[in-house]
Amino acid sequence: MTDALTGFARNLNWTDVPQDTRDVLRLSLLDWASVALAGVEEPVSVAVRDMVLAEGGLGAAYVFGADVTLPARAAALANGSTSHALDYDDTHFLHIGHPSVVVFSATLAAAQQVGATGQAFLEAALVGFEASCRIGAWLGRSHYEAGFHMTATAGCFGVTLGAARLLGADAVQMRAALGLASTRASGLKAQFGSMGKPYNAGLAAANGVEAALLAVAGMTSDADGLASFAAGHAGAMDAAAFDGMGQVFVTETVSHKLHACCHGTHATLEALALLEVDAQEVTSVSVAVHPRWLKVCNKPAPTTGLEAKFSYRMCVALALSGLDTGALDSFSDANCTDADLCRLRDLVRVVGDAGMADGAAHVTVTCHDDMPRQSRYDLDQPMPLEMRRKRVLAKSGSLIGPQSQTVWQQVQDLERSRTLDSLIATLF
Amino acid sequence: MTDALTGFARNLNWTDVPQDTRDVLRLSLLDWASVALAGVEEPVSVAVRDMVLAEGGLGAAYVFGADVTLPARAAALANGSTSHALDYDDTHFLHIGHPSVVVFSATLAAAQQVGATGQAFLEAALVGFEASCRIGAWLGRSHYEAGFHMTATAGCFGVTLGAARLLGADAVQMRAALGLASTRASGLKAQFGSMGKPYNAGLAAANGVEAALLAVAGMTSDADGLASFAAGHAGAMDAAAFDGMGQVFVTETVSHKLHACCHGTHATLEALALLEVDAQEVTSVSVAVHPRWLKVCNKPAPTTGLEAKFSYRMCVALALSGLDTGALDSFSDANCTDADLCRLRDLVRVVGDAGMADGAAHVTVTCHDDMPRQSRYDLDQPMPLEMRRKRVLAKSGSLIGPQSQTVWQQVQDLERSRTLDSLIATLF
Repeated sequence: MTDALTGFARNLNWTDVPQDTRDVLRLSLLDWASVALAGVEEPVSVAVRDMVLAEGGLGAAYVFGADVTLPARAAALANGSTSHALDYDDTHFLHIGHPSVVVFSATLAAAQQVGATGQAFLEAALVGFEASCRIGAWLGRSHYEAGFHMTATAGCFGVTLGAARLLGADAVQMRAALGLASTRASGLKAQFGSMGKPYNAGLAAANGVEAALLAVAGMTSDADGLASFAAGHAGAMDAAAFDGMGQVFVTETVSHKLHACCHGTHATLEALALLEVDAQEVTSVSVAVHPRWLKVCNKPAPTTGLEAKFSYRMCVALALSGLDTGALDSFSDANCTDADLCRLRDLVRVVGDAGMADGAAHVTVTCHDDMPRQSRYDLDQPMPLEMRRKRVLAKSGSLIGPQSQTVWQQVQDLERSRTLDSLIATLF
Repeated sequence: MTDALTGFARNLNWTDVPQDTRDVLRLSLLDWASVALAGVEEPVSVAVRDMVLAEGGLGAAYVFGADVTLPARAAALANGSTSHALDYDDTHFLHIGHPSVVVFSATLAAAQQVGATGQAFLEAALVGFEASCRIGAWLGRSHYEAGFHMTATAGCFGVTLGAARLLGADAVQMRAALGLASTRASGLKAQFGSMGKPYNAGLAAANGVEAALLAVAGMTSDADGLASFAAGHAGAMDAAAFDGMGQVFVTETVSHKLHACCHGTHATLEALALLEVDAQEVTSVSVAVHPRWLKVCNKPAPTTGLEAKFSYRMCVALALSGLDTGALDSFSDANCTDADLCRLRDLVRVVGDAGMADGAAHVTVTCHDDMPRQSRYDLDQPMPLEMRRKRVLAKSGSLIGPQSQTVWQQVQDLERSRTLDSLIATLF
């Protein structure tokens, strides 16, 4: 398995990668940059950035929110934490984790350090993405249930391979890098709800860069690090997780978060968007979801923006009013007391239906004409690529305004870019 | 428990610490500095040091083997790895780990960063020492058996408290620091036999400094980090491990490694030292130990210095010849082929005796007078403090020569020193 992974990591060639995979990876890169740029003033971003800025050192890689370069390990730590600060980045359900925040934070830092081409960076990022998701799937649900944050643990191994590739590791060094990652990888789910959650993404990115740097410098390590890690961390070790690696790219099925609120409300918002209704005409809304969500995101009358993110009723009111649920400031304290929004909110009824799929919602809107309009949405159904592109670009625009266009242009040009300079100039 | 630990960490006062505890802590500090200075050219020391030297940055703390200052996190990483490189540092059997390499590496770095007094540094180091050993005991043998390297995992928590104290953390910040440490702590026993083992000590020291820095900067975290960590890492959570904390100092029972070879040979060497024999007169030597050691350190005819460290027969030959088994260069390839040493080696017979205690040895030496001389030694019997002082100082002298005297003088003066400058000047 380690041979298969290191072989994949060393031999991947961008020109062999399917077009759809490339497109999705580019969208994830835009999405990552957007949530990072929008998150630079979050308290966790400031705390980690201030620490690494105070340390200073070698100008190898840029840090979001500061116009200076720092060592690659430091940039990875800060950018991983910053890009996960809003918890608005992509998710892969294959391994219940957030790949981009670890992958791009680590590989972009390592790529800057070695002066990589655009293609070399994209290849390393794709290695990190694929390996994170597949190693996460290999560690399995048992690992997650035992309390580990896949984003950080599986992510660390994935970016170790991506960073080691950029640093020119041979097969022996790449195995050593995985060994060093195995004794460095960490991250607990118990951090959810605290700044420790985004920190987990940062530490995973930094650990991967460090393991790669030390392995290339000749450090030796446990030859079977992945297995040693899995043995101590409730890993399921499901070998099927690596089936088709290098031919089938699981990156394609990453899920982009398109609303700035709890994931549990997303199917409802998507279903609602399929209906054309005039908020003035609405007389009642009924939302049916799996009952498990009623404990998660069914605050009936939220009073703060944060509570609104966990409120089906307020999410529906915002969407009916034409407010952008992809924009962070739609979830404001002020909107929670807005009379028109509260009127709409009070028309919404939420019911649990154990027959619904986990990622599905059924919405019924009744208007003054007494004719119920119904729609259904299931997040597990793949979104067509063209629609995904449109939606991610719109989200990016909501988050960072016109900068979104220039970043997207650079991301699209990346595979032909001899340096990362133009991309870097738009991001930092 | 967290309250008890943070209270202990914040309130410990050097003037309340028993004299014997102070003395043992000072001996451990000398011992740590000696093995670190002797280990600066080991490959793992060079690899980690080169990485942090290339990164450079804020001149907060010195690094063994380089005449420059670096950020505290970087110094902790390098010094932890360097001081454990020879695997010749102290051990605490309460938690099956090496306390000093993590404790002094982290707290000396943090102490330099804040310009601490000698007493403040000693207090923080003692906090780290006590907390590492007790948290290790609380995690228990189940944690060790599950594959975790206590030196790194328990050590990370211990030095988080020591570093947080130096940084002036209040009770809330200290709890947050433990929370951040819980999601950062790592280290696998599978690294034993590779450079990953000393690296584990370095990463634990760096993690502790980082967790303390971020908590003091206002990062929030899981409020019950220790319990979350234990739950995911096979922690026994034996509350008795904290009995008497602050009154009884477990630091006093740390074990100093006094021979530069496998721990399994030490009782034999101590038993032999109790006998007065002339190597020329010896006709046979019989060594009896618990049979488990026969698989560990019973190489009958070693050909390299490394193999000699795992050879009862060659260790006995070296000691009978009057060579210093506390000196690294006694375990040379050349000695393995020396005719006189090989003649003595071939007089030694090693037998397993299941009735022996794990840490005991029984040695019988017969000379030309045909009168057998017998002695017995058990490592679990505490060594009188005066003997321990003499032995640790002798070891230090073997390792670093006359520098040992100046370091020891500064260590003894430390509790009255207004700065760490004099100590630092002798170490780096």
